[in-house]
Amino acid sequence: MDVNPFRRRLLAGFAATAAALGLARPALSADARSALRIDSARLQKRLEDLSVFGRKPGGSFADGVSRFAYSDADIAGRAFVMDMIRKAGAEPRIDAAGNILALRAGTKAGLKPILIGSHIDSVPGGGNFDGQVGSLSAIEVLQTLNDGKVALRHPLEVVIWSNEEGGTIGSGLAAGVVSAEALEVTLNGVKRIDGIRRVGGDPDHLEQARMAPGSRHAYVELHIEQSGQLEKAGIPIGVVDGIVCIDEYEVEIRGTPNHAGTTPMAERHNALLAAAKLVQAVQDEVVREPGRQVGTVGHLEVFPNARNVVPGLVRHSIEIRDLDAAKVRAIGDRVLARAQAIATETGTVIDIRQVEHDAPAIATPLIQKSIEAASAALGLATMHLPSGAGHDAQNMTSICPMGMIFVPSVKGVSHSPRELTPWADCANGANVLLQTVLRLDQG
Amino acid sequence: MDVNPFRRRLLAGFAATAAALGLARPALSADARSALRIDSARLQKRLEDLSVFGRKPGGSFADGVSRFAYSDADIAGRAFVMDMIRKAGAEPRIDAAGNILALRAGTKAGLKPILIGSHIDSVPGGGNFDGQVGSLSAIEVLQTLNDGKVALRHPLEVVIWSNEEGGTIGSGLAAGVVSAEALEVTLNGVKRIDGIRRVGGDPDHLEQARMAPGSRHAYVELHIEQSGQLEKAGIPIGVVDGIVCIDEYEVEIRGTPNHAGTTPMAERHNALLAAAKLVQAVQDEVVREPGRQVGTVGHLEVFPNARNVVPGLVRHSIEIRDLDAAKVRAIGDRVLARAQAIATETGTVIDIRQVEHDAPAIATPLIQKSIEAASAALGLATMHLPSGAGHDAQNMTSICPMGMIFVPSVKGVSHSPRELTPWADCANGANVLLQTVLRLDQG
Repeated sequence: MDVNPFRRRLLAGFAATAAALGLARPALSADARSALRIDSARLQKRLEDLSVFGRKPGGSFADGVSRFAYSDADIAGRAFVMDMIRKAGAEPRIDAAGNILALRAGTKAGLKPILIGSHIDSVPGGGNFDGQVGSLSAIEVLQTLNDGKVALRHPLEVVIWSNEEGGTIGSGLAAGVVSAEALEVTLNGVKRIDGIRRVGGDPDHLEQARMAPGSRHAYVELHIEQSGQLEKAGIPIGVVDGIVCIDEYEVEIRGTPNHAGTTPMAERHNALLAAAKLVQAVQDEVVREPGRQVGTVGHLEVFPNARNVVPGLVRHSIEIRDLDAAKVRAIGDRVLARAQAIATETGTVIDIRQVEHDAPAIATPLIQKSIEAASAALGLATMHLPSGAGHDAQNMTSICPMGMIFVPSVKGVSHSPRELTPWADCANGANVLLQTVLRLDQG
Repeated sequence: MDVNPFRRRLLAGFAATAAALGLARPALSADARSALRIDSARLQKRLEDLSVFGRKPGGSFADGVSRFAYSDADIAGRAFVMDMIRKAGAEPRIDAAGNILALRAGTKAGLKPILIGSHIDSVPGGGNFDGQVGSLSAIEVLQTLNDGKVALRHPLEVVIWSNEEGGTIGSGLAAGVVSAEALEVTLNGVKRIDGIRRVGGDPDHLEQARMAPGSRHAYVELHIEQSGQLEKAGIPIGVVDGIVCIDEYEVEIRGTPNHAGTTPMAERHNALLAAAKLVQAVQDEVVREPGRQVGTVGHLEVFPNARNVVPGLVRHSIEIRDLDAAKVRAIGDRVLARAQAIATETGTVIDIRQVEHDAPAIATPLIQKSIEAASAALGLATMHLPSGAGHDAQNMTSICPMGMIFVPSVKGVSHSPRELTPWADCANGANVLLQTVLRLDQG
């Protein structure tokens, strides 16, 4: 591989630092390495401590957090996490995109860093586990290695991505897939570009946050599953096959608003009746074939939305997800055909516009194998599953091999204060992350 | 009939006034009476003049009016109309409910007034014809009789009801069917009880606005049809059979909000899918049998209403209307049964609560016959039809015989600036109202 002069000097510097820290001593025995465990009590304590940032006044852990990106709660939580990184023995920095990064030197010059991490921002009204388990477990891995004076051949890089919930913006900027227009979007009251500056980033020099393709050895992210599959199967570790493709559509149905008392049924052009048929059609077309594909109409608005007026206009979303992009496309095509028939049947005009196509992000088999082996060595059963939710990991597929570890979400609840992953499952996930890193370090 | 002493003195006073005005002279010949016509140019001019109150700045007649009850525009329009009544030769008064009333004396003591009128308040974003055609035609009838010095046996009473569009409040207070709670409701920014005071009413003495049952000879209201039936049939005059029964329901569908990417289709409790099925069920059950019945889901809200969340809660309205209350009840019962099946099918909980039952108001056959005879004498074809919309007339059925005259609405558009009744149709309606009054005066 190609290492440019700047990078070569940088890596030489890391090796020197590692030597200074005494990390370049002979490696632990394989047995000692495989016996290494994170501190589960410390992990729990830190997750509990982090939860106060974005908690409602007078609330408790059970009330979850509203720590959306770029908010005061986010900034406070980030400061707390940066301090945690320092306690783990590394110096955090904030890149131009607002991501928090910390590098631990490796012993072998020229090797690329193993990148691990997740995010600590939440949706409004979110829980204490989504992103946070993976972030604090990555720091826990860093600290466990430092506390145990365990040298790795590769540098270990911890990342706390900025603004995952608002569109995987921090990791997207690192991957170079965020447009200038997207940075102008305001969400939860803050324009993204202003938010980046607010958390200590430098939106005028975002190119500095760019991770070059091939610049990392691997990216591994631990995350809660956000579905109930692991819990239902009684399996503690999920090996993610990939992050699904998402096709999103915006639908506008135009009928004629008219008096609900005086307009005969046969003369109505009822936009909500058409929407009702289309919601049913989305359901029908998604479940028509076997598989894990999902399709949802989550957002719908009626105009003028008065009880005594036949609805003249409805706008709604459609999104379809599956690991298989061709299947997602085919379902979308069938829904479009159904929509045209519904428009004719109801005397309405239905416009459907595709607004998003997120390609699937397929996990790297070699990393999946490392996760499986690490889990097996820990006596933890695994199952393969797709991620129906988007993750920062999807942006990393263009940079390096990628893998994700899932831990169970009780009843599949997520983006809710009731989101819950038992502490033992959090610790299992962190130990699998640790052991996966140790295995990947051999490569 | 029973006339209390106070009323007897009052009617005696009217007769004296009539004598003083010279109205108690011998009646016109039957031919002269049937040749009597309103001034169509004046009616048009006054409708155009009234339209400036509530018109948007810089707008024209085609922009319609926002003259909702108790607003400044309403107050200005009411002052304009009161002046118009004075020009027509009567003195307007404002009753405790805010209704504008004007009485023209009759020649025969002891006869009860014939009451005619409508309303001039509009919905926000309304048109120039709904209510206004009937109101100004009633004043036109008054002025035509006065200008022609045509004596009637009965007193003629013109009423401009207050706040029709916000719930037929003025006529409801006259009929004694408005609850104290209803007066506390705020609509378009004004609490009804404050609004009544604002337009010159006296909410502390609302009982003074009460019309005693049997206190009027008849009530006749001219109104635009608000549907396209007359225009489609090419018939200028509608003889209203009655105002439909309305049953209103509020529906709450509770499912489980969850991540649209991670929740398998089979495990969803999708409130919007259930609502879609229920919207379709309302449609099905309404059109299942022949007839003019209508059913509408006009208001629907989705929670949390995010494109990536399976909807956990939907609230929506259902209303069902027909002249036949038993049919309306039966359709409602069938929809309720369908809802329970949908709840089971979708794994949701559906609560349906009836929030309104407006009994049908059936027109008095004798008044219908007078309208038909008046129309026939004017060479105007008639057809019978129900009123799908509510009207002040429905409150008058407990007071006296009631009838309504409809004139065509182009394309059935109403509650819209595009609401239109051609001037010739307005004049036809006013002439039918005049000739109907003359016929009812014989009774």
